[in-house]
Amino acid sequence: MRKELDSIFKPRSIAVIGASTTRGKIGREMIHNILLAEFQGKVFPVNPGSPVVHSIKAYSTALDVPDAVDLAIIIVAKEHVCEAARLCGEKGVKGLVVISAGFSEVGKEGKKRELELLAVCHEYGMRMIGPNCFGIVNTSPDVRLNATFGKINPRAGRVGFITQSGAMGEAIMNHANELGIGFSLIASIGNKADISSNDILDYMRDDPNTDIILMYLENFGNPQNFTLIARKISRSKPIIAVKSGRTKLGAMAASSHTGALAGLDVGVDALFEQGGVLRVDTVEELFDVAAALSKQPIPKGKRVAVVTNAGGPGILATDALISNGLEMPPLSPATIKKLKKSISAEASFSNPMDMVAGAGGREFKLTLDAIKDDPRYDAIIPIFVPPVTIDQMDVARNIQKSLEGTDKTVLACFMGAGEKPEAIEYLKEHNIPVYIFPEAIAKTLALLAEHREWLNKPSGKYKTFKIDKADKAEAEAVIENAYAKGDLSIVGEEAIRILQAYGIPAAGYEYASNAKEAVAAADKIGYPVVMKINSPPILHKTEAGGVMVDLRNADEVREAGNELERRVGKLKKGEKFTVGLQKMVAGGIETVMGVTIDPSFGPLVMFGLGGIFVEVMKDVSFRINPITDTEAKEMIRSIKSYPVLSGFRGTKPVNEKIIQDTLLKLSQLVRDFDCFSEIDINPFIASADASACKAVDARFILQKR
Amino acid sequence: MRKELDSIFKPRSIAVIGASTTRGKIGREMIHNILLAEFQGKVFPVNPGSPVVHSIKAYSTALDVPDAVDLAIIIVAKEHVCEAARLCGEKGVKGLVVISAGFSEVGKEGKKRELELLAVCHEYGMRMIGPNCFGIVNTSPDVRLNATFGKINPRAGRVGFITQSGAMGEAIMNHANELGIGFSLIASIGNKADISSNDILDYMRDDPNTDIILMYLENFGNPQNFTLIARKISRSKPIIAVKSGRTKLGAMAASSHTGALAGLDVGVDALFEQGGVLRVDTVEELFDVAAALSKQPIPKGKRVAVVTNAGGPGILATDALISNGLEMPPLSPATIKKLKKSISAEASFSNPMDMVAGAGGREFKLTLDAIKDDPRYDAIIPIFVPPVTIDQMDVARNIQKSLEGTDKTVLACFMGAGEKPEAIEYLKEHNIPVYIFPEAIAKTLALLAEHREWLNKPSGKYKTFKIDKADKAEAEAVIENAYAKGDLSIVGEEAIRILQAYGIPAAGYEYASNAKEAVAAADKIGYPVVMKINSPPILHKTEAGGVMVDLRNADEVREAGNELERRVGKLKKGEKFTVGLQKMVAGGIETVMGVTIDPSFGPLVMFGLGGIFVEVMKDVSFRINPITDTEAKEMIRSIKSYPVLSGFRGTKPVNEKIIQDTLLKLSQLVRDFDCFSEIDINPFIASADASACKAVDARFILQKR
Repeated sequence: MRKELDSIFKPRSIAVIGASTTRGKIGREMIHNILLAEFQGKVFPVNPGSPVVHSIKAYSTALDVPDAVDLAIIIVAKEHVCEAARLCGEKGVKGLVVISAGFSEVGKEGKKRELELLAVCHEYGMRMIGPNCFGIVNTSPDVRLNATFGKINPRAGRVGFITQSGAMGEAIMNHANELGIGFSLIASIGNKADISSNDILDYMRDDPNTDIILMYLENFGNPQNFTLIARKISRSKPIIAVKSGRTKLGAMAASSHTGALAGLDVGVDALFEQGGVLRVDTVEELFDVAAALSKQPIPKGKRVAVVTNAGGPGILATDALISNGLEMPPLSPATIKKLKKSISAEASFSNPMDMVAGAGGREFKLTLDAIKDDPRYDAIIPIFVPPVTIDQMDVARNIQKSLEGTDKTVLACFMGAGEKPEAIEYLKEHNIPVYIFPEAIAKTLALLAEHREWLNKPSGKYKTFKIDKADKAEAEAVIENAYAKGDLSIVGEEAIRILQAYGIPAAGYEYASNAKEAVAAADKIGYPVVMKINSPPILHKTEAGGVMVDLRNADEVREAGNELERRVGKLKKGEKFTVGLQKMVAGGIETVMGVTIDPSFGPLVMFGLGGIFVEVMKDVSFRINPITDTEAKEMIRSIKSYPVLSGFRGTKPVNEKIIQDTLLKLSQLVRDFDCFSEIDINPFIASADASACKAVDARFILQKR
Repeated sequence: MRKELDSIFKPRSIAVIGASTTRGKIGREMIHNILLAEFQGKVFPVNPGSPVVHSIKAYSTALDVPDAVDLAIIIVAKEHVCEAARLCGEKGVKGLVVISAGFSEVGKEGKKRELELLAVCHEYGMRMIGPNCFGIVNTSPDVRLNATFGKINPRAGRVGFITQSGAMGEAIMNHANELGIGFSLIASIGNKADISSNDILDYMRDDPNTDIILMYLENFGNPQNFTLIARKISRSKPIIAVKSGRTKLGAMAASSHTGALAGLDVGVDALFEQGGVLRVDTVEELFDVAAALSKQPIPKGKRVAVVTNAGGPGILATDALISNGLEMPPLSPATIKKLKKSISAEASFSNPMDMVAGAGGREFKLTLDAIKDDPRYDAIIPIFVPPVTIDQMDVARNIQKSLEGTDKTVLACFMGAGEKPEAIEYLKEHNIPVYIFPEAIAKTLALLAEHREWLNKPSGKYKTFKIDKADKAEAEAVIENAYAKGDLSIVGEEAIRILQAYGIPAAGYEYASNAKEAVAAADKIGYPVVMKINSPPILHKTEAGGVMVDLRNADEVREAGNELERRVGKLKKGEKFTVGLQKMVAGGIETVMGVTIDPSFGPLVMFGLGGIFVEVMKDVSFRINPITDTEAKEMIRSIKSYPVLSGFRGTKPVNEKIIQDTLLKLSQLVRDFDCFSEIDINPFIASADASACKAVDARFILQKR
């Protein structure tokens, strides 16, 4: 794969098919850009209509090119693309970049054309980027390839960039140029008919010129694969991604745009979390984070010092930092003592350290010198609001002089310095990113600190519980029985049996068909008990008044039995009235666990608190299956209502290990049987007392066979 | 007041005291700015050291100035400010702007100096802005005053700006200049020793040159007053504010910075909500919103049409719009039919309407023409990502031509158009604001749509319930009794009595001192009952195991009574064991209501759901007292868990009217008695059944006398 992609990203010779006439300006711009970037190989325009393009001799077909060709860029009208590709194949071309649009993104006919094109590639062993893409870039000095048709010749730098949208790709390249951010490799992947974003991620992992990777994504071809690749790369090269199509309507637009199924947002969040990808919401944030990562280390922790010459911005920065979850420890007494010797007494000597408006280069140097060696900080934010009396350039030089070589993360803020950009330019050149507003710094730092936590945490293990052959057979029997009956929903005792087969603690059932039998069953179980209508089947039992809880003695059970029978009313022919009785699990906390099968992400494992928390507050966590033990733990701890589980108002914390194992067992269950479309354990009672932790009710929905 | 402020904002003659030597460059810059802006009156430098400043004759003291002086700007060292002010008073100066720092912001001594300065102002009937401020601006053609010492001569425009931080003021002015936003009036209010932000707000309300008002605030002098003023102004002129010091740490920095108590964030949010102020988090957003409001109408509703020439940005916009609560109705069949005649068949004909990359001016014009008359939209967002093949200027002209005169709100997005700003400039000049990223548009539109809702909603009434004299006396007796006992906490039956006096439904108590009495009491109340230890007093009864719920018969009551007595253990001398019994209110939803007294905002009324919701999820709403009936209703509806009250899973919605009235009665209670420092009703049972709605427990904490 590596070698195949080399022929695309490091070609020695290129043919541009459709170099001038067919697609109007695009072909000419492409040649122009290739020349402008000083491509280190040879370029051959191919165009039957014009013998010369941009002063270069052009050929009628790829076959006429006198030299060997590594890469062909195809820009001809959609109807001629397959033919052009075939000629490239005959010529022995190794890689294609197909710019032309009019393929799977425009419907059925296009999809057919795309498959045909792919078949040509397979036939001749060519690899392809596109179709419907914006081109590729490699700024490596021995390549210098800009095979895009934009107005921008991207600067060289250490950022790799993968984009699924050509338009967004161009917009992002323009914006990067304005910000002075340089690229190593750029790939606009278009419809991803052959080469996917995963392939290019993998290629960038080994690229010595790439330190960080930016992605603009609209959907995922193979999310499981993405997680695996990202998980590996993220350990050494941070990946920052904007995934659009987040909201439901947004996703609809994505789907009509790309002809692909858009991802559920919870799936995407889980994917990025599990893969260690830094997810940003906007293109602006993408660059804020890229600017920091391309020049500064990832902070060791969350502790930030703010040094400012003005109160207002210091407060804004503090607000933004704290509300983004960062910490601002006060200055140490030793630092304060040191600073009081040389800084105006009107300064505040706290964090933010407000040196007041008179402060210039000298004060910044003194203060930053004192703070940069203090181990209580992981990051430093110098803020400067230029008063007319202070020399900005002097401030910039002193900030740089002081902080050069520090291992702390430094992000500077120069507010309202628009008219004198030299100071800002100076800092940027010396690897200190400068932001206009402190809020952008806070968001960026928060994301980096989170990534540090991700890097620090154990990578987790995929656990496999030993399940007895007999137990597995038991679960299988329940499933097969349901299929045999033509009933795709497994509930009640049958569902409990599957859980028990996989060692998930569950409250068993006793059945009764009248009040008298119910009392006998309750006596056997022990009071208090819960009684539910078992047949006739009712879907939402609680809402329908089909559940009686906390029955404390025989009298109450008898009364409840009669009442339920009354509520059921007349039975249809062949139906029988029965109730199920369970031991009432008291004093625990209701949780919900489950699995749902997402069309693009496969099984997602879910956890949350029960009742209102899951249904109104939507306070749940998702992970893509399979999950590691660490991930199961995180699922529990990442819900907002976690304090309810960890000991709230003096109650004992619940036994998390049992919840964790139950999630892992669910994960294993869907790996062992790939027939489920949904699993719900609701409620699973969590308690400090291990023996009281139990699934009370569960439901399995089977896929159609 | 108006006339007094006129002498400051519309002076005919100014003296600049300390025009050159004392504060170094500041005085010279001030004179320079006054001249540069072409002040329409006379300016007199006052400086004992130099006879000429900036080629203008200077005078030794204010008294030496030959003409009458309306406004004096004082820039001398802090020690000389009072003396300079006194001479101004002698001279008959009407207003002061005191730039000099070193007053209440630097501690006790400074505070003393500030009071002294204020006394001088009072003595001579002068009004003052500052001290410790950045100056003032009035761009009105008959005034043209720029009495600031920044590097910027602000453009004239229709935006009023009030800033509490000089540094932020300068930064914001710089940024505004870059964005082409012009100002009518600017006031840097510094320490607000005399003239407050409320005074200036009031002044801007009547200023014919001001259409919208921006504020940068760090604290509030008189929040109640602010709400009243803002509520009036917001109906005609939108107010947009950044309030810093949001988070706890941020507030600490604000407090050390300004020497004032920083506001609790919930108070600020309530204040802005009740005053109809558009609250933004960052300076960037301040300008995003200002740009929209200064050029476009507030949208009539939330329904947005997006018209784009590229899929990616369309998806980003959709994501951002939907997640900010806006709506995107699909195109009408009639519009689609119309568009299909003239737009490429590859376009998507949905919302976002993606005209695909070939679209230029013609397509924008056709599409926008079809959409602008469609009553299903309140706002239109044209998005353009410049492909190399399209003439940007042509696109801009066609967007403008189509949308000129529409009553819908138009905000345009030009992504990555950095190199050719002419098109953007063209649109801005024609009153269409242009943003680089769609997310900024979404946030801005959401805020404007929210403001429209605020404008549309009934302004609400302050309700006063008729309370019987005897009832009021009863409440007073309980309070006085507590003071007499020296007990600042009123709980149990006493607390219930206050509620009942104000017509708040509450569950009464019966008392018993042993199990036998308890059974008699329970028989009287009717089962099921709740039993709580009444004495000895225990603060957190539930945690201490001092509450038994759902006792269903005499046996259970007897057993519970004995158990509680056992739990209390040995009594101290003089103590007696008693329990209180209440009717158990079943089937309702626990809510919490209360009042807390904030040091800067006064009483805040609170509402939320009980238990975990208030303690873990912090899902509560606050309003500043007094509250209107509309506000009480909003308090209930604005919590996240509101669906639990409005009918969740088929349950009936609770009786909101009773909750609303209870909040209004609490509001009245704290107006009638200003002795409370805290009131808590926890729980108040809300139910569909009005007779079941009841306060079960309450606590009043009295202020020390």
